[in-house]
Amino acid sequence: MHMLEKSIDLLINSYNSIGLVNHREGEKLPSKDSIAHILYSLDELIFPGFRETTGIEHTDLTLSTPEKIYHIAGELIRDVEGSIAFSSRNGSFSCGREGCHAAAELIVRDFFEELPLIRSLLALDLQAAFRGDPAAKSTQEVIVSYPGFEAIMVYRMAHFFWTREIPLIPRMMSELVHGRTGIDIHPGAEIGESFFIDHGTGVVIGETTIIGKNVKLYQGVTLGALSVKKEEANKKRHPTIEDDVTIYSNAAILGGETVIGRGCIIGGNVWLTSSVPSNTVVYSRMGEYNEKALK
Amino acid sequence: MHMLEKSIDLLINSYNSIGLVNHREGEKLPSKDSIAHILYSLDELIFPGFRETTGIEHTDLTLSTPEKIYHIAGELIRDVEGSIAFSSRNGSFSCGREGCHAAAELIVRDFFEELPLIRSLLALDLQAAFRGDPAAKSTQEVIVSYPGFEAIMVYRMAHFFWTREIPLIPRMMSELVHGRTGIDIHPGAEIGESFFIDHGTGVVIGETTIIGKNVKLYQGVTLGALSVKKEEANKKRHPTIEDDVTIYSNAAILGGETVIGRGCIIGGNVWLTSSVPSNTVVYSRMGEYNEKALK
Amino acid sequence: MHMLEKSIDLLINSYNSIGLVNHREGEKLPSKDSIAHILYSLDELIFPGFRETTGIEHTDLTLSTPEKIYHIAGELIRDVEGSIAFSSRNGSFSCGREGCHAAAELIVRDFFEELPLIRSLLALDLQAAFRGDPAAKSTQEVIVSYPGFEAIMVYRMAHFFWTREIPLIPRMMSELVHGRTGIDIHPGAEIGESFFIDHGTGVVIGETTIIGKNVKLYQGVTLGALSVKKEEANKKRHPTIEDDVTIYSNAAILGGETVIGRGCIIGGNVWLTSSVPSNTVVYSRMGEYNEKALK
Amino acid sequence: MHMLEKSIDLLINSYNSIGLVNHREGEKLPSKDSIAHILYSLDELIFPGFRETTGIEHTDLTLSTPEKIYHIAGELIRDVEGSIAFSSRNGSFSCGREGCHAAAELIVRDFFEELPLIRSLLALDLQAAFRGDPAAKSTQEVIVSYPGFEAIMVYRMAHFFWTREIPLIPRMMSELVHGRTGIDIHPGAEIGESFFIDHGTGVVIGETTIIGKNVKLYQGVTLGALSVKKEEANKKRHPTIEDDVTIYSNAAILGGETVIGRGCIIGGNVWLTSSVPSNTVVYSRMGEYNEKALK
Amino acid sequence: MHMLEKSIDLLINSYNSIGLVNHREGEKLPSKDSIAHILYSLDELIFPGFRETTGIEHTDLTLSTPEKIYHIAGELIRDVEGSIAFSSRNGSFSCGREGCHAAAELIVRDFFEELPLIRSLLALDLQAAFRGDPAAKSTQEVIVSYPGFEAIMVYRMAHFFWTREIPLIPRMMSELVHGRTGIDIHPGAEIGESFFIDHGTGVVIGETTIIGKNVKLYQGVTLGALSVKKEEANKKRHPTIEDDVTIYSNAAILGGETVIGRGCIIGGNVWLTSSVPSNTVVYSRMGEYNEKALK
Amino acid sequence: MHMLEKSIDLLINSYNSIGLVNHREGEKLPSKDSIAHILYSLDELIFPGFRETTGIEHTDLTLSTPEKIYHIAGELIRDVEGSIAFSSRNGSFSCGREGCHAAAELIVRDFFEELPLIRSLLALDLQAAFRGDPAAKSTQEVIVSYPGFEAIMVYRMAHFFWTREIPLIPRMMSELVHGRTGIDIHPGAEIGESFFIDHGTGVVIGETTIIGKNVKLYQGVTLGALSVKKEEANKKRHPTIEDDVTIYSNAAILGGETVIGRGCIIGGNVWLTSSVPSNTVVYSRMGEYNEKALK
Repeated sequence: MHMLEKSIDLLINSYNSIGLVNHREGEKLPSKDSIAHILYSLDELIFPGFRETTGIEHTDLTLSTPEKIYHIAGELIRDVEGSIAFSSRNGSFSCGREGCHAAAELIVRDFFEELPLIRSLLALDLQAAFRGDPAAKSTQEVIVSYPGFEAIMVYRMAHFFWTREIPLIPRMMSELVHGRTGIDIHPGAEIGESFFIDHGTGVVIGETTIIGKNVKLYQGVTLGALSVKKEEANKKRHPTIEDDVTIYSNAAILGGETVIGRGCIIGGNVWLTSSVPSNTVVYSRMGEYNEKALK
Repeated sequence: MHMLEKSIDLLINSYNSIGLVNHREGEKLPSKDSIAHILYSLDELIFPGFRETTGIEHTDLTLSTPEKIYHIAGELIRDVEGSIAFSSRNGSFSCGREGCHAAAELIVRDFFEELPLIRSLLALDLQAAFRGDPAAKSTQEVIVSYPGFEAIMVYRMAHFFWTREIPLIPRMMSELVHGRTGIDIHPGAEIGESFFIDHGTGVVIGETTIIGKNVKLYQGVTLGALSVKKEEANKKRHPTIEDDVTIYSNAAILGGETVIGRGCIIGGNVWLTSSVPSNTVVYSRMGEYNEKALK
Repeated sequence: MHMLEKSIDLLINSYNSIGLVNHREGEKLPSKDSIAHILYSLDELIFPGFRETTGIEHTDLTLSTPEKIYHIAGELIRDVEGSIAFSSRNGSFSCGREGCHAAAELIVRDFFEELPLIRSLLALDLQAAFRGDPAAKSTQEVIVSYPGFEAIMVYRMAHFFWTREIPLIPRMMSELVHGRTGIDIHPGAEIGESFFIDHGTGVVIGETTIIGKNVKLYQGVTLGALSVKKEEANKKRHPTIEDDVTIYSNAAILGGETVIGRGCIIGGNVWLTSSVPSNTVVYSRMGEYNEKALK
Repeated sequence: MHMLEKSIDLLINSYNSIGLVNHREGEKLPSKDSIAHILYSLDELIFPGFRETTGIEHTDLTLSTPEKIYHIAGELIRDVEGSIAFSSRNGSFSCGREGCHAAAELIVRDFFEELPLIRSLLALDLQAAFRGDPAAKSTQEVIVSYPGFEAIMVYRMAHFFWTREIPLIPRMMSELVHGRTGIDIHPGAEIGESFFIDHGTGVVIGETTIIGKNVKLYQGVTLGALSVKKEEANKKRHPTIEDDVTIYSNAAILGGETVIGRGCIIGGNVWLTSSVPSNTVVYSRMGEYNEKALK
Repeated sequence: MHMLEKSIDLLINSYNSIGLVNHREGEKLPSKDSIAHILYSLDELIFPGFRETTGIEHTDLTLSTPEKIYHIAGELIRDVEGSIAFSSRNGSFSCGREGCHAAAELIVRDFFEELPLIRSLLALDLQAAFRGDPAAKSTQEVIVSYPGFEAIMVYRMAHFFWTREIPLIPRMMSELVHGRTGIDIHPGAEIGESFFIDHGTGVVIGETTIIGKNVKLYQGVTLGALSVKKEEANKKRHPTIEDDVTIYSNAAILGGETVIGRGCIIGGNVWLTSSVPSNTVVYSRMGEYNEKALK
Repeated sequence: MHMLEKSIDLLINSYNSIGLVNHREGEKLPSKDSIAHILYSLDELIFPGFRETTGIEHTDLTLSTPEKIYHIAGELIRDVEGSIAFSSRNGSFSCGREGCHAAAELIVRDFFEELPLIRSLLALDLQAAFRGDPAAKSTQEVIVSYPGFEAIMVYRMAHFFWTREIPLIPRMMSELVHGRTGIDIHPGAEIGESFFIDHGTGVVIGETTIIGKNVKLYQGVTLGALSVKKEEANKKRHPTIEDDVTIYSNAAILGGETVIGRGCIIGGNVWLTSSVPSNTVVYSRMGEYNEKALK
């Protein structure tokens, strides 16, 4: 089929002129499938036996745990190193090949040492989910079937890499779980313990959001920015939610100076751009509607 | 890289102290991948040739059908048995190893005998989708590209297991299709024939919802609860939607005593917490907005 | 387990009576997995190295590019041919086996020749995303982690097949990326250059929507129809959005005659069913709500 | 790399001029991988749990057995049908498309009904191997590590298809196990019960060989033809070995009229082209050699 | 295809009556695929980068080595435990579940600690092959393309398990490499350093063979037994080959008391059943043949 | 299982001290799996449809042929380049990184342009096999089930690379097919058209063998060397076989000056170290043996 030859030449020309080829233009950046594979393996490392079909019954955790850790470490170091090198070229600091690799090793080591702490936090989130949803019959059910819990699990790992200023990887992680759950938690957000999101589709939590303990969100809640100007990228643009707040479905809370005080309840569909004092109930006037009989 | 040894020890300690390992603590619970694989196979069993790349042209359905059924049965019995045993340990009844296995076999047998009925219901849902969307060009298009239809297909299977009081599996099924479609139908809901959901992202249908025949929903519709107290877990907390109702995008209908009467049309973004008599049109006052010219 | 034999017979009877088997009833229609595989391969062809784990470092693009094109061409021609034959049977024109195959070859050839143009458009969309989101740190980050960008990439390919009147395939493509991103862009929509969707979950863009250049949408925006009558399937049912418009989260703009003029800003949650003149800011009155202190 | 285009054209020309393309020239013949896959599955069907890594512990044989049989049946019917159609075109009888398919179904059904008998014969072969080799510690060891036993297992299945005059498939089966074991048993040979081949590499047993009960062969034994003229293809060209014969390594017994009588022992490296009466020991004079001291 | 149901019943009956099902009758014995997978992984562990397609360039051996060891250890412990338990049931000693597992762990630990020694021995074998074959251009060529070297590599591992009296596994290992190379070295043989087998097809080395240093064998050599009586299973039945001996193709040396003295050269096709003093050349009288002119 | 840590350290030390790691010590040499995959793909390229299970029915050869060629070219160029660089470092010539790559590209291009010629030669070999074996029922049967034919196919490709002085790859190819067939043809041998090997196990054809047209060999034939001294590596060490010669099973013909004249027939088990004039029949005196009656 010689007629495809023209398109082959055109496409190769396009690679040469426009670029956007990983990684002819510089460092080898992580690929989507690579980060997806790492996340999948981490899921199984954190809650052994709940993800993969083959159970763990005959497998001694003292053998499978180091095997998994060494395996994931190899992949993570490669991708963290590529991301650091990318950042080094574009940013304010720089590391040579040796230096970037050494930095990647240290960060990955720290990450694995943090995992038991992340497990402890997730155990609290699990309790919050179980308490917070009358439909939940067991904590095991939460692990295997709550998208909100899955999103929080990934957030807690992605946030680690964000705090180490690794580019790309934390956002790729949060986007992967956004794709699976419809819940978009920016890895830069700071979220306290015992956090619960129910149903979750459409939830957006922006980069500079701060969330306290025992907060509960429903589907479609936006914790967003008022301003989307590029030059304000380094400002706090998203709200602060204090401890023990509940926010019902499709509410939007916007702005970096907006603070929802401790113990508030924000009703469904409420649209808030200013602060609310502690222990306040806010409910929408959307309940107002018109009716007419058909014919 | 000896520096990973510390994290290995910490993580194994965490498994021992916090647990959350399937299944060192008891029954072998189903894994996410296992239920995902079962659902995938059931999809191909219900509409042969529409899911897998390899078509069925050379394959005699009289051979491939029993092959698939025996295959899925093996996996389902294992997972249903684990779930029943889990339930037996935590719940009000109990079965020994033999008993749980025998019960699982009976339930799986009943499930396969119900499949032709489910196909018949789905054929009606298919017609409803085709009639209900002007953009639909054929029923085949609905099978291969309507997320609402996929969600209903999975719901009708998950509901079977819910009615048999199998824990975990029905919720895992509904959550898998929630992840793919953004449509969250609790398997406990009761939904009549010829049901159609268009676009679907963000739809939430709660555990005790009752939906009649010929109901049509759009994206973002919530059929939810007013109360989320754990102690009301066994009450009817979600609304009743009678036959021939249409509910437009992002409407929220809440509460176990809320009844939307036969033939109603609920407009987009309407927020309802009380009943509406039959044949009523309800529309939001959200159309009201402010305008100003840009400089 | 003889008790499964009854269900085998019942299911085969159901295939014979209800049908819905691809492709015993006619042409071999594309399967979901087939189109998914094609889309995956096209993703890697458009931005080499960003999708698959194995990088492209040692691979000469002059070898891998023709390999991929010939591979995808084989699959696409098969599925386009099946779709054309299906359309030929049901529609107003008809092609024989030879004719359908030849037509499929030509369309696939044209598609590959269009790919460099699609890459150029996507390079502009990429710039729009980078400029439009203060959180975006690089264009590479947009490629690997922006669902809005992924949805646009697939739209631009699916739209090609839509304009060639190929049934099923464009809708299957748009639905696959809808599943991954929660963004539902009908392949029939016409969308200008430098388009950006942020977060994206819940966005719906209908079949006859027309969108100009430099338009920006946020999550939950609906560009929908007022009428969903089957007999109006061939009318323009969805709005027109002119150049340089921004539409914030959860706004709904409905109706085929609704035109949002150049340079407008539509606020979050606005519900619009009529046109807005150029350079107008529209904001919801949803900001109005009630408060009460908790005991 | 435009320089490959010339070779592409040359190769396609070669396909058109020389042919040898399955199956542009006629029936779809079985492929090597297809028969290899069927044999692999049959191995696991005959001795469940000894071949595949995943054991059968949790799998009920009443589920896995029909699953495997239906699966293999689908593949076998396809390949038997192709082979029959090929034979129909070239041979003395002919079947149309329907007829070839129906014939294939009957043969495959008969094959599966013969499997229990084949298992019984193999149980006897197993005993013969265990008794015949002082190094054998258990019958299980014979199943998992005796190439001679593997070759006999495949022979007993291939012979079934040979007796039904199916072309290609029996020879492909015997060649697959020849490749793995170095033992070349033509599927046309007739071999009695309790047969044992030790070590096995280099054994050749020709098409018209007849072997009685309790025969034992060592590596490198040839039971071959004296004449290799094409026109004698339908004559008995290979020897007859009566009951209770042992033939040591690298012996060659040639000719269709050569009969080794009951109870004979044929020594290593013996080269025989004529019959031997019952209960005779034949030993080579090869023991004669020359010696000289080095330096 | 109801006609398969009879064969399903017959086959399940056969499983119940004849058995030969792993592992309904007792311990879970290793499967062929399991040992094959372990051997494959060990190959890559011993000579990293020479077996798998993906090289090791980007992989730090300090990560990949522990990953591989923990992985293989998990599989080996399971299979060694099953084999020990099998042996425990049939043999003279016995271990309970805990005891068999603990024993398996110790043996596997010892095996991994022996691997560096095995590597050192293989480095000597490699030199012997390079020196011994004029066609060998490099030691790398020997690693990647000498079947004799592959057979020795597997022998040196299988022999470890043999000396620990693990049943099944060593024989399965030697049989796997016999299948690939045509070289059948019983794991019970004792073979000194710097051993080389050229070409190798048809070589048989029996269970009680003893081979010194710097021995070289060619294809088809048998080091076999004179007696194959079951009751002599515990006697030395195979020959002793002292240091620096070369044995040419197809020679057979038989008998437990046959000793080939240091420095001997045994010619092709020689058939020896008695000892040969050191530094002797033995050559066959097979060079004698008859000639006649054609026509 | 901390007890594995010692073995990890020991093994890493062994890598550092002994080496034998591909490719920390230099060029990236081809791996066994890589060459195996290339050979597999070439098999399917040469005789489309006879190897892979998925037939070629729906696949246009004008699409699948370039796809396969570009795919194999990418792999071959990588491995040829590594081999050339290895040779460059150790041998008498040298190429830099650019130069080795360019050389690899040219050799691979030439290889693909030679493939149609190789197909033509194989078509003649196919005819020779069909004519030469009374048991062969069709040429298709030869393609799918004659190990001799498979060995010749691989030889004809490996020989191409040998003549281009590429190290490792031709030997790896010949060894792969040796493993599958027991036939060991050194890629340096020169073999004329219409060559046939029947059964084949144990055949050895040495590096400097020359074989004319229409030659036929049986299992176990050795065409070998008399001298195996390293310093004679560059001499002709193996025999010359002229046109129309037949050599029966297990005959050995040795020595670089041994010439078997045109039209000779060499009987089974003959051991020849000197030349034979044309049209001579040579037969062994092995037919002589002793007999005695049992008891």
